Amino acid sequence: MTPLSTTPYLETTMLAHTHTSATAFPVDPSTGTLRPLALTEVRIDGGFWAQMQELNASAIIDHCETWMEKVGWIGNFDAAVEGRLPADRRGREFSDSDVYKLLEAMAWEIGRAPNERLDTRLRALVRRIGAAQEADGYLNTRFGRTGQDPRYSDLQWGHELYCYGHLLQAAVARGRTAGDDELVTIARRAADHLCEVFGVGGIESVCGHPEVEMALVEFGRYTGESRYIDQARLFIDRRGHGVLGDIELGQSYFQDETPVRDAEVMRGHAVRAVYLAAGAVDLGVEDDDAELIQAVSGQLARTVARRTYLTGGMGAHHEGESFGADYELPSDRAYSETCAGIGSIMLNYRLLLATGDVTYADMIERTLYNVVATSPAADGKAFYYTNTLHQRVPGSVPSPDEPSPRASSSLRAPWFDVSCCPTNVARTLATLGAYFATSSASGLQVHQYSTGDVSAVLDGGTVAVHVETNYPADGEVRLVVTETLDGEWDLSLRVPAWAETGAQLRVGGEVSEVPAGTTTVRRAFTVGEEIVLSLPMVARWTSPDPRIDALRGQRAVERGPVVLCLESTDVPFDGSVDDLRVTEELSDVDGVVTVSLRSMAARDLAWPYGVDAPELSAEIARVPLVPYHSWANRGPSSMRIWLPVEVDALAS
Amino acid sequence: MTPLSTTPYLETTMLAHTHTSATAFPVDPSTGTLRPLALTEVRIDGGFWAQMQELNASAIIDHCETWMEKVGWIGNFDAAVEGRLPADRRGREFSDSDVYKLLEAMAWEIGRAPNERLDTRLRALVRRIGAAQEADGYLNTRFGRTGQDPRYSDLQWGHELYCYGHLLQAAVARGRTAGDDELVTIARRAADHLCEVFGVGGIESVCGHPEVEMALVEFGRYTGESRYIDQARLFIDRRGHGVLGDIELGQSYFQDETPVRDAEVMRGHAVRAVYLAAGAVDLGVEDDDAELIQAVSGQLARTVARRTYLTGGMGAHHEGESFGADYELPSDRAYSETCAGIGSIMLNYRLLLATGDVTYADMIERTLYNVVATSPAADGKAFYYTNTLHQRVPGSVPSPDEPSPRASSSLRAPWFDVSCCPTNVARTLATLGAYFATSSASGLQVHQYSTGDVSAVLDGGTVAVHVETNYPADGEVRLVVTETLDGEWDLSLRVPAWAETGAQLRVGGEVSEVPAGTTTVRRAFTVGEEIVLSLPMVARWTSPDPRIDALRGQRAVERGPVVLCLESTDVPFDGSVDDLRVTEELSDVDGVVTVSLRSMAARDLAWPYGVDAPELSAEIARVPLVPYHSWANRGPSSMRIWLPVEVDALAS
Repeated sequence: MTPLSTTPYLETTMLAHTHTSATAFPVDPSTGTLRPLALTEVRIDGGFWAQMQELNASAIIDHCETWMEKVGWIGNFDAAVEGRLPADRRGREFSDSDVYKLLEAMAWEIGRAPNERLDTRLRALVRRIGAAQEADGYLNTRFGRTGQDPRYSDLQWGHELYCYGHLLQAAVARGRTAGDDELVTIARRAADHLCEVFGVGGIESVCGHPEVEMALVEFGRYTGESRYIDQARLFIDRRGHGVLGDIELGQSYFQDETPVRDAEVMRGHAVRAVYLAAGAVDLGVEDDDAELIQAVSGQLARTVARRTYLTGGMGAHHEGESFGADYELPSDRAYSETCAGIGSIMLNYRLLLATGDVTYADMIERTLYNVVATSPAADGKAFYYTNTLHQRVPGSVPSPDEPSPRASSSLRAPWFDVSCCPTNVARTLATLGAYFATSSASGLQVHQYSTGDVSAVLDGGTVAVHVETNYPADGEVRLVVTETLDGEWDLSLRVPAWAETGAQLRVGGEVSEVPAGTTTVRRAFTVGEEIVLSLPMVARWTSPDPRIDALRGQRAVERGPVVLCLESTDVPFDGSVDDLRVTEELSDVDGVVTVSLRSMAARDLAWPYGVDAPELSAEIARVPLVPYHSWANRGPSSMRIWLPVEVDALAS
Repeated sequence: MTPLSTTPYLETTMLAHTHTSATAFPVDPSTGTLRPLALTEVRIDGGFWAQMQELNASAIIDHCETWMEKVGWIGNFDAAVEGRLPADRRGREFSDSDVYKLLEAMAWEIGRAPNERLDTRLRALVRRIGAAQEADGYLNTRFGRTGQDPRYSDLQWGHELYCYGHLLQAAVARGRTAGDDELVTIARRAADHLCEVFGVGGIESVCGHPEVEMALVEFGRYTGESRYIDQARLFIDRRGHGVLGDIELGQSYFQDETPVRDAEVMRGHAVRAVYLAAGAVDLGVEDDDAELIQAVSGQLARTVARRTYLTGGMGAHHEGESFGADYELPSDRAYSETCAGIGSIMLNYRLLLATGDVTYADMIERTLYNVVATSPAADGKAFYYTNTLHQRVPGSVPSPDEPSPRASSSLRAPWFDVSCCPTNVARTLATLGAYFATSSASGLQVHQYSTGDVSAVLDGGTVAVHVETNYPADGEVRLVVTETLDGEWDLSLRVPAWAETGAQLRVGGEVSEVPAGTTTVRRAFTVGEEIVLSLPMVARWTSPDPRIDALRGQRAVERGPVVLCLESTDVPFDGSVDDLRVTEELSDVDGVVTVSLRSMAARDLAWPYGVDAPELSAEIARVPLVPYHSWANRGPSSMRIWLPVEVDALAS
């Protein structure tokens, strides 16, 4: 157990990055402790994440495009061009943003694995969008026309700047993978318009949904124009002073009650909170503003310590899709929005680059395996928007033809009225490589483990390693040097926090125990040289902080980075996941994990208080647990991650 | 522990009630197992509820009127008359209803304790309201004028019929306490208009918020006109077939996904659910429709068994102010809206009258002491809208001048944007007497205990008893017969379910143990004869059903009908109510209840999972518990009802 430190970021002077020929960086800070690698520098070839990337390429991206044509969100741009708005507008006020997120996913996917068919579709989409842009750069299908609300008349809820943010991010993706093209031109015109309207002397406000901040910084990095970064600074500094006015959910809903520099912890709408924080880190990095980065890293540390689910999921409340109070983390109705998990990964990645602290990579791993991987169905054609940790009653099958309400969480749905999550999953999976490894002047750091290849240009030349592993099925990660340079360089591997004891490193036949954190081998590597990291991949019990009332008397099982769950499909008795108690037994035979449990005698009382301890069956059943990310792929079921424990086992 | 029976209502032929000269009945069914008593037949003279009634008369009613003048909700009627709508309209779409609930409270209060000043104010209000009624009987300040939405254009959210419902209930209160007057005339015109517009051949829909159903039945009972009851029947039968269309919260939010006859359990918006159920019982009673009453009583039984807080509070979710799933009853952020508690009391009272089953009176008692009594501050000038069972962080002091958001629950607020609760508390306190006792052809039943007098006209003549008690401070209830009749009659007393063992009855010097339920003494009583019921009033531990995850490893303390809580104001250490464990010790010395607890060593971890058992202090502190209804009257505090228990104590 690591004590909470709320200032993991120290005021070290960050090194300016020297650029190589690679350009496909999802995030490309000008300074930082670690350098990002481009999508072309990290190949994921086999195993869990390669399958997910393949699912994205073959199913998810297509699915998103098909649905957005079907529900008319793409058609809104055509309707704008043809003067059919507002009559023919479809979808919520922010639907444009999902078309942009789809574009971004397509652009990164093409950058990762060139695909002419996809490129043609991307260019067709860009043309339809560009046609709808107005002469002054304004672009939004929901506002500004006769019969529509005026431009920028509803900054609280209108999402106009949020939509621009996603447009800019799509343009950065396209620019960095295919060079300046029409999409970049559209984005530049929109960004210039935005800076004019919201710049100094313009409207002194912000968007109800943060997003444009990090997009502006990245667009500034891409174009080399500081005015976009200046505009991001204005937005970051304005926020927190009540500029948006009050709403029934309170100003903290959109983080407008406290400036980002002064806040102690994340609160309000979880996606808004993590997007804002990611933008603040981006700005802090460009401004060399250690205080700002430290403020955000402190907020994240407190949020991880007190307001984050075991899965890495964030956001406890359905109401306001928001964080709860410290230690208020109910499993049932956990909101844990997929987009909040993705935003948390974006934020943790930025802090990893800025600080080099691999605890951020730990959180990325946890969230990837247990939030991002949980969202899509096995066929890539249905998604979770919320990711509950406890499903009491098997859900009903969502309509295959109609969008579902966003907060339905019993079974994955093909589309939602508010469908931010599927396109967010798509762009995340397309950019996965960047999260897996980084470099520095003198070394290569591998943070996430998958079969594949990583290369990096260090100050002394290019180095590369091939990685071979069945991770997370087993814990052995074999790295072979495939390219090296003259002299010594550092190969750093992350030893996850869950591998606190038992991790071993084998270099040149010598085996040593390695502690959690970063383990670095520095030597003059030769091609073919092998380094093997062995992580103790075995199921383990996890107990919750005693202040989390919702989890008292319960334990979860984790195996490596994967959170397991009990699904009713696997339970004998009446298939309930609630009327039972687990014993202390836990077995893991080559990854087949089982727990022992007793069932509670059925009883149906008129009043659920003043109740005796339940009678437990003498018989003990052994029941398999499955990865949480795989649940509900076998039809409607109930499920729980946290398992009630026999009192005897508790006392031990 | 009573096993759950979902059919407490048996198909007995209900007796038609013969009327006496009393008229001040809040509910006046034409048939039923028990007869209601009028407010003039039950006097509450001393003790807890007398103080609450006095608070209502001296503070709460005035407070509601003052605020509704201040925020302009009463002024809306003047603005309507003066043609200043919609420009000058204030408040939410349903604000008219709160003016009507105030009128209802005033009318019952005048009926309970004549008050000329209040009567003058009531008549002045009625004049202002009547002036705004339109020629065809339509009355609503939010719809129908130029610049406003058309009448009945938003049945999902417009609350027009809900407002009529409260108008009709106010008129019934006035009519039954002061006779037909202008308010009754206004209501009759509105009801006739409503029957015309929504009757057979009219708009085939219902109101998004049930309420008008029970109001129409009662107005039909009052006027003797069956057309109002027929209209209620149309509304009850139409609902549940999706007539309102879909909304993001789902059709179950307003109980329009399943007809009331077919539903298994209460779900959706809690106030809507209990109001609808109360109206269905009213209709079932008038129609001699045992099937309908049985459907509702079954739903209530399942709801009480699985979806009700220890306090009697209903509604687990802030989102949608709705019921959760079975056993989903988190203490933190318990919604438990005051109005849902009041609606539950209304429903339980109707079922008590229909069936004679005193378990309904048990639930009324629990809800009165722990929801209704919790809402108003000690000075009657601030209220809880939601009634959380666990406050993690002391709240901030609500604005004394501005309405608060409705769901703020950290400290009582003087008024809310949605302020249904204060006026609901006011009308409930004014009608309290009716809930306390009932009669039948051959006897008098006392259900709730307070110093006061009860009289009833039985078939053989009038009987009366004087009650003397310090209940709930102690458990002795002394009844003296003050009026009797020739021959035998029944005096029935409720022995609460919590007094399962240890209750004693003393009649004529003979003491006998009496079980929970109804205990009846049948004899030819003489004036001055004394009957003493002794209830075991001592603090007791209460354990939750093991399926309530949120309460695992915790126990609550109850004393008689009163739920106790731990308030940070009383806690040594750092004043936290969360970082502690209670032992098995529980002491009750003349009502001063204390528990023993150990504090947990402070620790602040980076990740709240994978945690060792906390270190507990060797030192044990004895800390007082206070009645939950009294909490947060000593400034901002944190609070919890359910106390984490040492593992050793759990095993016992």
